[in-house]
Amino acid sequence: MSVAEPMGDTTAAPTRSRRRERRPERRAGAAAPAYITRRIPTYELLGEEALARIEDTADRILEEIGIDFRGGDDRAIELWREAGAEVDDERVRFPRGLVRQVLSTAPAEFVHHARNPARSVRIGGDAVVFAPAYGSPFVMDLDQGRRYGTMDDFRNFVKLAYASPWLHHSGGTVCEPTDVAVNKRHLDMVYAHIRHSDKAYLGSVTAEERAEDSVEMTRILFGAGFLESNCAIMGNFNVNSPLVWDATMTQGIRAYARANQGTIIVPFILGGAMGPVTNAGAIAQAHAETLVGCALSQLERPGAPTIYGNFLSSMSLRSGSPTFGTPEPALGSLVVGQLARRAGLPLRCSGAFTTSKLPDAQSMMESVTSMHAAVQCGANYILHAAGFLDGLLSMSYEKFVLDADFCGALHTYLAGVTVDDTTLALDAFREVGPGNHFFGCAHTMANYETAFWDSELSDNTTFEQWSEAGGEDSMVRANKRWKRILAEVEDPPIDPAVDEALRDFVTRRKGSMPDAWY
Amino acid sequence: MSVAEPMGDTTAAPTRSRRRERRPERRAGAAAPAYITRRIPTYELLGEEALARIEDTADRILEEIGIDFRGGDDRAIELWREAGAEVDDERVRFPRGLVRQVLSTAPAEFVHHARNPARSVRIGGDAVVFAPAYGSPFVMDLDQGRRYGTMDDFRNFVKLAYASPWLHHSGGTVCEPTDVAVNKRHLDMVYAHIRHSDKAYLGSVTAEERAEDSVEMTRILFGAGFLESNCAIMGNFNVNSPLVWDATMTQGIRAYARANQGTIIVPFILGGAMGPVTNAGAIAQAHAETLVGCALSQLERPGAPTIYGNFLSSMSLRSGSPTFGTPEPALGSLVVGQLARRAGLPLRCSGAFTTSKLPDAQSMMESVTSMHAAVQCGANYILHAAGFLDGLLSMSYEKFVLDADFCGALHTYLAGVTVDDTTLALDAFREVGPGNHFFGCAHTMANYETAFWDSELSDNTTFEQWSEAGGEDSMVRANKRWKRILAEVEDPPIDPAVDEALRDFVTRRKGSMPDAWY
Repeated sequence: MSVAEPMGDTTAAPTRSRRRERRPERRAGAAAPAYITRRIPTYELLGEEALARIEDTADRILEEIGIDFRGGDDRAIELWREAGAEVDDERVRFPRGLVRQVLSTAPAEFVHHARNPARSVRIGGDAVVFAPAYGSPFVMDLDQGRRYGTMDDFRNFVKLAYASPWLHHSGGTVCEPTDVAVNKRHLDMVYAHIRHSDKAYLGSVTAEERAEDSVEMTRILFGAGFLESNCAIMGNFNVNSPLVWDATMTQGIRAYARANQGTIIVPFILGGAMGPVTNAGAIAQAHAETLVGCALSQLERPGAPTIYGNFLSSMSLRSGSPTFGTPEPALGSLVVGQLARRAGLPLRCSGAFTTSKLPDAQSMMESVTSMHAAVQCGANYILHAAGFLDGLLSMSYEKFVLDADFCGALHTYLAGVTVDDTTLALDAFREVGPGNHFFGCAHTMANYETAFWDSELSDNTTFEQWSEAGGEDSMVRANKRWKRILAEVEDPPIDPAVDEALRDFVTRRKGSMPDAWY
Repeated sequence: MSVAEPMGDTTAAPTRSRRRERRPERRAGAAAPAYITRRIPTYELLGEEALARIEDTADRILEEIGIDFRGGDDRAIELWREAGAEVDDERVRFPRGLVRQVLSTAPAEFVHHARNPARSVRIGGDAVVFAPAYGSPFVMDLDQGRRYGTMDDFRNFVKLAYASPWLHHSGGTVCEPTDVAVNKRHLDMVYAHIRHSDKAYLGSVTAEERAEDSVEMTRILFGAGFLESNCAIMGNFNVNSPLVWDATMTQGIRAYARANQGTIIVPFILGGAMGPVTNAGAIAQAHAETLVGCALSQLERPGAPTIYGNFLSSMSLRSGSPTFGTPEPALGSLVVGQLARRAGLPLRCSGAFTTSKLPDAQSMMESVTSMHAAVQCGANYILHAAGFLDGLLSMSYEKFVLDADFCGALHTYLAGVTVDDTTLALDAFREVGPGNHFFGCAHTMANYETAFWDSELSDNTTFEQWSEAGGEDSMVRANKRWKRILAEVEDPPIDPAVDEALRDFVTRRKGSMPDAWY
């Protein structure tokens, strides 16, 4: 398999042109860039003094309070002891500077390879990668409402992400396929990502052997030697906040790192529950927890790719429920972006979060707030960019295509404002003059095809046109759209020998153990 | 009437506390700040070189091409001639530096007084003021659909803005009251703002005498001498882009400035129609058009308050319709914010724009994109912050309360992240330790009431709770909410003598002319 450089967007913002319109839906992905190269600055919320205070608080948490490594991953604790940490049973305390020193081997940027080299993504620096939501036990659509996710749903979301020109990555557990045994579903999930998409994907993290299976399937796909020096799969690992790393997670981190594959390290802090109710404290805690997880990957294998992840949320005082897409985590993302850059690590940030149970006004108010923060803070890998409803518990077919459409808009947003002779258009003003219109002028004719983002889901027609066409809510249009995409999408080609080897592996592994449902 | 300093939010972000919950809806406004004092930095999109190129292009447009003053406002042209501009019939060309020199008398910041001094708003600097949408001929609600706006609708929207703790200003033409004669409706509109609200308001701009009537009613309200040295009313003036100022507008600008009252100067550029299809050129044009309008106010009366306004939009290549809430105008707002600061003028930016015909997912995707840009770019006065649907043509009751709720969230967003000993919460970590929760810890108990934004319209309950409560879309909840607010809101008190004088003025002016309907 080729190790070509990934094809980011290095020329112009991908904007819908008339030419695009004639292409069938399933080909839409073909013309899109493999990822976005941001051309707008990050939004710098805090100054040096405030950032240094947050970092100092994280250092003090690590030094004075420490982190528990629970569940029996003795090797993880041993690695920290060898590195110079103070170990007191499960509790590990980190002398000031130790974690940053361990992290010095982590790459600031790396390539996450896809089986189609044209879809490999760059992670870090100015690159921005959008991936679907991850981990919902339920799925929803307007026809059937909410029900447990199945392997059919899983394949559908992989196909929807493959068909979208605005999602660069296939994600991981796009929904929980609850109709497959817990100890075997990772095999079907990884196979589905490989077979129904040619974009890069995440593997399992729920047990060390499942992480190893995920890596092994990727080895079969890419060839044995490729993974030794290239990242072709990543795992997404959650801290058990506050200040606890569970053995399942640390064993998984070490399994991916051991194979030189990527780890994404993500605290999961609902303020007031797993962290302080105040933003600055929750951010300091997240910083401490993340750095320790990223550093563990370096203790296992220096130089293994690792991503600084972030997941902050807030809480409703009225309902006692977690809230998402609110201002506090949006601000938190902006600060976390600054901290990740200062730590020299690629950043994963929160995506299209909402507590709404329908793809309605609330859902997009919250999701857009969260997504704006994610792209403005400089996140490189944005998991959960499409699909969530119901406080992360449900993956919605309609929300998925609404979010994917908004990811398209963000391609244009991240392209920024180009200021040059062409865009300043002084000749157009000379040609048109006061009081006339620009419709037919030379500048318009030369530039209109790439001028504006044109959503395929938004309705910009007049009230009368819209009424005559049925007066549909955007969630109804989204319902039609995902059905059309699924009806038209075709699997990308795959080498039959590789496909057979993957199927053999899955069959063999499934046959080696009884079903477990917990 | 007192000339007290307005009461901006100078302490803490207004967050829903339990205490707030017990207050009746109509009192909600009482506790809210008169305006927001931003505590987050502006989002600086472009660097010095790019900004200087845009400014240079604006200068060249003004110098080489010039602006037409059409419709017979000879005095406006004469003022420019006296100032040193080159006048060729209607065309005025501006030697480089002239406009900026004229603008040197414009205040960078001023107070826009409300009849209730506690509601006076600061315009400029770090102050942010939210005002309702302006100018729709139609109104919409879920019960009756779309129809022409009436004076009853107008009063309803004034009351809804008065009742909202998150809208700081009463706006102007909150909808067109099409059941009142065109030449008389300004009298009813200004009276409605004064009678049903105690927040600051905008007056008429559709004819010089209507501008003068609006100012005169404000003089009756505040007392004759007050307006000589204080701003108590403003007018919102549109450029007839590209590069044309109509006499109706320039006469209105001069009428407000003559009375030392505020002018908001706003180009209305749909890229590809009234300006170039490329963002940089449209911004340069807007900059030129705005500066000339602001400067005209200074020629009429040096020192009169004037606001740098902005309205950029894009176009759908598929439908040929204007689009709103898209990435290009959001980026444009960020640049315009930089230009306004460099010009030393307060800024008005675009608000909650959308082309959607329902308060659905599309509507908030677009409105939130636009509003984020408005607050991030440093806008001081955000007109159209609540109510629009249908590409500015309709004022929606449901969208109004959804937008107002999002304005509440933006109060918290603009308060930023406070980093101090309390918020860093190191003691809380010491108390709670790894693996425990923060629910009952001392830090949580001391801080939870002001910790998080808690929307009154968003549903954060579980899927089961939400289903049991009826499974409502957020637009249905919004429908119930505006009806409850209107049922509960009470007019603020007013001095009966002032009220009678205002009614007399309206009756006299209405009696002085026959109805005109165009």
